[in-house]
Amino acid sequence: MLSTTERTRLGRAKHKAGTDRQELYDLLDTGMVCHLGVVVRGAPMVVPTCYGRVGDTLYVHGSTGARSLRAPGEVCVTVTHLDGIVLARSVFHHSVNHRSAMIYGTPREVTDEAEHLAALRAVTEQLAPGQWGAVRPPTAKELAATRVLALSLEEASVKVRTGPPADDEEDYALPTWAGVLPVRQVFGAPEPDPVLAEGIGVPAHIAGRSS
Amino acid sequence: MLSTTERTRLGRAKHKAGTDRQELYDLLDTGMVCHLGVVVRGAPMVVPTCYGRVGDTLYVHGSTGARSLRAPGEVCVTVTHLDGIVLARSVFHHSVNHRSAMIYGTPREVTDEAEHLAALRAVTEQLAPGQWGAVRPPTAKELAATRVLALSLEEASVKVRTGPPADDEEDYALPTWAGVLPVRQVFGAPEPDPVLAEGIGVPAHIAGRSS
Repeated sequence: MLSTTERTRLGRAKHKAGTDRQELYDLLDTGMVCHLGVVVRGAPMVVPTCYGRVGDTLYVHGSTGARSLRAPGEVCVTVTHLDGIVLARSVFHHSVNHRSAMIYGTPREVTDEAEHLAALRAVTEQLAPGQWGAVRPPTAKELAATRVLALSLEEASVKVRTGPPADDEEDYALPTWAGVLPVRQVFGAPEPDPVLAEGIGVPAHIAGRSS
Repeated sequence: MLSTTERTRLGRAKHKAGTDRQELYDLLDTGMVCHLGVVVRGAPMVVPTCYGRVGDTLYVHGSTGARSLRAPGEVCVTVTHLDGIVLARSVFHHSVNHRSAMIYGTPREVTDEAEHLAALRAVTEQLAPGQWGAVRPPTAKELAATRVLALSLEEASVKVRTGPPADDEEDYALPTWAGVLPVRQVFGAPEPDPVLAEGIGVPAHIAGRSS
């Protein structure tokens, strides 16, 4: 089981609840942006930011939405992959194929230097695999300016919807097209910095991601 | 100005804050999934769900994550477009080009029948333009089973990052490739429901979205 707290058991039976830890890892490892939910003066705040995973710890980057990361208390981090638009024979059964993970917990700020570096490496490589070893590493000053939160993956849920629409029995006779329009995220051709010095080619670890 | 409350003024100067209402509309109108943040027993919960816009009202669909939509109190709805990975000459200046909107407020549940239909139409058309008129409309029973929340766009902020990396002056001399790897969402070829009756072709409003 992934987690057995009340809020990580899915309230609705319609979507399949993932209970496999590997499914959680795969979902997290193929994402690029998470949505970090915090409570600020009693009200929710949802901030998109970058993250990385090391084992059963999720590291959330603090350089964006910094206000929300100052001693945030309990958080909810959600990572969503949109896989397709489910086009049913009725408005009511329209849906989206997706995989999403929700992780709950009270994160700690990373202060240990070795963990801080490992966390930043994970966050950087999540977004841009191969870049950590290819570019200038962080200085002590830059490290100090980068807040990273560590959140345990202990309390997590995974929700998945796949496959064709589930129409009402009587609607299958309608002369209406039904199916799934797949959605995916792709990379375009790398766009060099306009001031890039001549003769510096695009490294394979970057060029190889474009479709 | 979009909004002038404290939490919609961006705390960090690094990213451009959008102040144009049209920019907010464009951002919302081209998204497919939002992240809805609510507070449940003092803790944040971030649920991915579908939405639609009519004028200055955002309608958020309640069929997923229904627990979070029962009298949610104050919410934060965030819509994020990931446009590119910013590959800098240093780890520290790596970033993402993106556009995101955050909308705050206390939503009301839609109970008026005409508004309920208009809201469901907006949510459906946001996800699948052209489907509202092409498939079986909702029955009274289905309408009753579909919760829609209405949230004013009054208190909103837009955050945008575009363009090449902003490296440190001394790093521009490094022999390191730098630039942007564009990211975009594309539609694949429509996948017919395996039980679709023969002879029903893919309508143009669906086929036309595939790249």
